[in-house]
Amino acid sequence: MNSIAVVGSGLVGVVLAISLKQKGFDVVVYDKSIDIRHMDFKGRSINLAMSDRGWKTLREIGIEDEVKQLAIPMHSRAIHTIDKQQSIQPYSVNGDSAIWAISRGNLNKELITIAERFGVEFCFDTPIWDVDLDQGLLYTAKEERDKWTSIKYDVIFGADGAYSRVRHRMQKQSMFEYQQSYLELGYKEFIIPADAAGKHKLSPNLFHIWPRKDFMFIALANTDGSFTCTLFLPYKGKVSFESIQSVEEIEVFFETFFSEVKELIPDYLALYQENPVNSLVTMKCFPWVYEGKVALIGDAAHAVVPFYGQGLNAGLEDIYVLSRIIDNCTERNWKEVFKAYQENRKPNGDAIAELSYRNFEEMSASTADTMFLLRKKIEVNFSKKYPKLWLPLYDRVTFSDDSYLKALEIGDKQKSIMDDIMQIEEIALIWDTEAIEKEILKRL
Amino acid sequence: MNSIAVVGSGLVGVVLAISLKQKGFDVVVYDKSIDIRHMDFKGRSINLAMSDRGWKTLREIGIEDEVKQLAIPMHSRAIHTIDKQQSIQPYSVNGDSAIWAISRGNLNKELITIAERFGVEFCFDTPIWDVDLDQGLLYTAKEERDKWTSIKYDVIFGADGAYSRVRHRMQKQSMFEYQQSYLELGYKEFIIPADAAGKHKLSPNLFHIWPRKDFMFIALANTDGSFTCTLFLPYKGKVSFESIQSVEEIEVFFETFFSEVKELIPDYLALYQENPVNSLVTMKCFPWVYEGKVALIGDAAHAVVPFYGQGLNAGLEDIYVLSRIIDNCTERNWKEVFKAYQENRKPNGDAIAELSYRNFEEMSASTADTMFLLRKKIEVNFSKKYPKLWLPLYDRVTFSDDSYLKALEIGDKQKSIMDDIMQIEEIALIWDTEAIEKEILKRL
Repeated sequence: MNSIAVVGSGLVGVVLAISLKQKGFDVVVYDKSIDIRHMDFKGRSINLAMSDRGWKTLREIGIEDEVKQLAIPMHSRAIHTIDKQQSIQPYSVNGDSAIWAISRGNLNKELITIAERFGVEFCFDTPIWDVDLDQGLLYTAKEERDKWTSIKYDVIFGADGAYSRVRHRMQKQSMFEYQQSYLELGYKEFIIPADAAGKHKLSPNLFHIWPRKDFMFIALANTDGSFTCTLFLPYKGKVSFESIQSVEEIEVFFETFFSEVKELIPDYLALYQENPVNSLVTMKCFPWVYEGKVALIGDAAHAVVPFYGQGLNAGLEDIYVLSRIIDNCTERNWKEVFKAYQENRKPNGDAIAELSYRNFEEMSASTADTMFLLRKKIEVNFSKKYPKLWLPLYDRVTFSDDSYLKALEIGDKQKSIMDDIMQIEEIALIWDTEAIEKEILKRL
Repeated sequence: MNSIAVVGSGLVGVVLAISLKQKGFDVVVYDKSIDIRHMDFKGRSINLAMSDRGWKTLREIGIEDEVKQLAIPMHSRAIHTIDKQQSIQPYSVNGDSAIWAISRGNLNKELITIAERFGVEFCFDTPIWDVDLDQGLLYTAKEERDKWTSIKYDVIFGADGAYSRVRHRMQKQSMFEYQQSYLELGYKEFIIPADAAGKHKLSPNLFHIWPRKDFMFIALANTDGSFTCTLFLPYKGKVSFESIQSVEEIEVFFETFFSEVKELIPDYLALYQENPVNSLVTMKCFPWVYEGKVALIGDAAHAVVPFYGQGLNAGLEDIYVLSRIIDNCTERNWKEVFKAYQENRKPNGDAIAELSYRNFEEMSASTADTMFLLRKKIEVNFSKKYPKLWLPLYDRVTFSDDSYLKALEIGDKQKSIMDDIMQIEEIALIWDTEAIEKEILKRL
């Protein structure tokens, strides 16, 4: 049986290791970090929203129920406007599909324990500095400048994230397409602590958003009664991390835009001052694989901004698709497997990158916009009546099995139809009439 | 005085080292390769076409005349059509400006000797694997996997080309924008040997092109009577490196498209089989500098495809601009110097990348196209009459001091005017009338 190394013990690396171990391969996972089960894990994490694509993968390896213990379902968005009003927007047409809030740190720790139970071997505190693509060698040393030793594997997976070392080696090949690009927006972590009774201060079953157009604050519940929160804010400009630095500036900023948040987080000032500003990268590359030896997976192959909540879900779906391909390839020909994997996943990686990039505007601005809400209502109305003709984009990305590419393509078509519809005179008055329904049908 | 390391002993690295040495700095140049003066240098080089921006830089450091001994002026293109006709197209409006053919290998060897004369120190056979940006450390070892030693400098320049190691370190910073992209076109080197008398088989003062639309063959003279030639051809497709592999396929290809070349190169078959196919990359990144410690220059900062003959010229112009900025900064504040350098050069690096990318079509297809030639004639006509109103794009890029960005912007405007003009009915008959002249004037 082949020996397989997985570089990276993040969520995708560990789930991949479990999946491969279950197929009978010898699997070793390497990570430069020490075992995170012995670490405090905070300061730069955005809570995850696990949705159908993620669960599908965990279900296949038989750990869905166990992991769901860590997660809190969220059926709707709660939009907190600047005048402290809250409006609820269900995520799905039917209103009962949920995305699941889950702490990245807790999930990762739990997955490592599960993987050990399945017999996956872990080498922590073991940085991989380079890879020999042809020979399948990993090079390791405590420090990059020390003498490296090599370890040989039949197959190597780079699951080492957006700054992948394995990909760095592939990037040096001729004809390797590569692009990394940062938003002019950073983020900072906050925590809403549990109340005196240890309970959540807001409903835990809602995805809380305080949209303010060019910036926003979000909160996702943890199982311990707290919320992990993220402030997304431009690096520079009139209202930005650069312009908000002194105690007074921070206080005025929260008082003006997030007075509700200010009350929920007694130590918001200290958290703003202590926590780092993290950046948001989109990374695309091609190819993802090298012969039958090396493959990139998860963020190492396609890093996206977090605004669709699909980064992890896309990585887990990579594993789901790869697993099917391995099972269907009776001779375990890795070159064939990797080729099919790449052909299937690369277009979808690009599509979710595009969808994620676009969704910041929807989250930060449109969710508080009347015309946007009207547009959603028309879509939901129509979709309920003609479920086979219209599934809204968000539902397709989050709650369906359709590919991201298909979602993007159909989404663009739907958008152009809805752009037309929204131009109709007095649409706000006649939106739920048969006339409008006919206009949509005509365009489909 | 500051100690400066230049990583890379290519053309830009060596000229930069001379320029800095002349200002009184201690300069050491590192290169992973052995001294190329002891090497054979062949198989993957495209001969250089040095033009005004390059000469301007060499003039400033006082080595223009010396280097010109190695170069051959080319005033015109010679277009070789498939029926073995040759047409001559002057490069400049006035007809007497020239670009200069020069062998990359010979030039590089000569420049190293000149640099040593100025007191520049060279460390060959010394690979730099990594850089500490904050401390200004270079890390070196024979092999990457060996233990590294470090060497400290006040300032470090990454002149280590399109695959720059210095840039690789910068790329790992947050907010570093990076993009590398390959053409679906590769190239292969050929040599037209001198004739029995040691003379050139074609006129050496012409840039020879055999344009065939999706592919082309070019030849630039060497001082020894030979020509260094390049075949540009798609990797894949009907007529491609992939489809032309067997002896018969190679023979048929040359017989069909380049029968003239076939006669000029007796061993074309062996050269096709032996020489590698090289790739063509465009690389853009930002920022180019790190504080006052590290700066990228030349291909390490902006790698372009070779179709405008400006890759080296752009790199040398980086040095010219940098030199002026250093001279104008009385306190030698490197942070200020690097900031001004980057602000000046980054937009121009992007502009020449765009111009270079677009110029393949002009070289490979349009040069043999009647309407293209008519368009050029109209432009030249108008430019001769109104030199202050119209300088053709090629002249501005190649023979002027205007920035690449300005050239791109004015070029786009001129293109849109000429697109209009070429739509005029019977333009081929009335192209040199006053009416056409008025049409152009009206649009300016």
